[in-house]
Amino acid sequence: MHLDHVGVAVTDLEAAIRFYGETLGAVVTERYELAHDRVRVAFLDAGGALIELLQPLGDEGPVFRFLQRRGEGVHHLAFLVPDLAQALVDARVHGQRLIDERPRPGAGGRLIAFLHPVTSHGVLIELVQAPQVG
Amino acid sequence: MHLDHVGVAVTDLEAAIRFYGETLGAVVTERYELAHDRVRVAFLDAGGALIELLQPLGDEGPVFRFLQRRGEGVHHLAFLVPDLAQALVDARVHGQRLIDERPRPGAGGRLIAFLHPVTSHGVLIELVQAPQVG
Repeated sequence: MHLDHVGVAVTDLEAAIRFYGETLGAVVTERYELAHDRVRVAFLDAGGALIELLQPLGDEGPVFRFLQRRGEGVHHLAFLVPDLAQALVDARVHGQRLIDERPRPGAGGRLIAFLHPVTSHGVLIELVQAPQVG
Repeated sequence: MHLDHVGVAVTDLEAAIRFYGETLGAVVTERYELAHDRVRVAFLDAGGALIELLQPLGDEGPVFRFLQRRGEGVHHLAFLVPDLAQALVDARVHGQRLIDERPRPGAGGRLIAFLHPVTSHGVLIELVQAPQVG
């Protein structure tokens, strides 16, 4: 099991970046606007894993609704898997509910899919296909 | 910034361990009962960081109250700092509200302290003093 990143929903991306910088010395490594997911994101280097701060683009999308419902906080955990299509087959076999039935593009062009928190002990889990080595 | 672990509150520790094992191949590396925090915990190896699953010991304590209020889900993020006492001074200077005014023992005898989510963009943050090297 390899944690790729922790997604944190925030209302003000720049204020959150300042917080992690002042308190923990965090440095931004990547920024993206993800039109499909209606978010602007910044990745912070956290040693072996990343923190992904997510601010909604406008008044719609899953992160906007998350903030309305629960306020700022941890939104999802993302884990690397060697073969995402196979991981989704295995998840279904084990009774997991899938949000994405098949891999789709995520931040930085990586292939991703989400599992529903109702069958993941309350955690929204993102599976990320690990980059091919060599 | 170095993420040490992600704390996840669960109602049934063994069921949660099975979920992370089946879905992500997770392996338990450490188990503790933390009487002060009224939890039984298991740490799972997640590559560069750990997942800490927390089940309440009985019907009291902060994790029990978290589960009553919000249900299962991510409870806290823990980051390593080189000097925890200094990190708490710095956090106060930057206007962070502290839950623990000074370092206290946590899992595995490490020194820890929590910052209040109200000044941490909704995330309960645990600071962990990094082990001395050499």
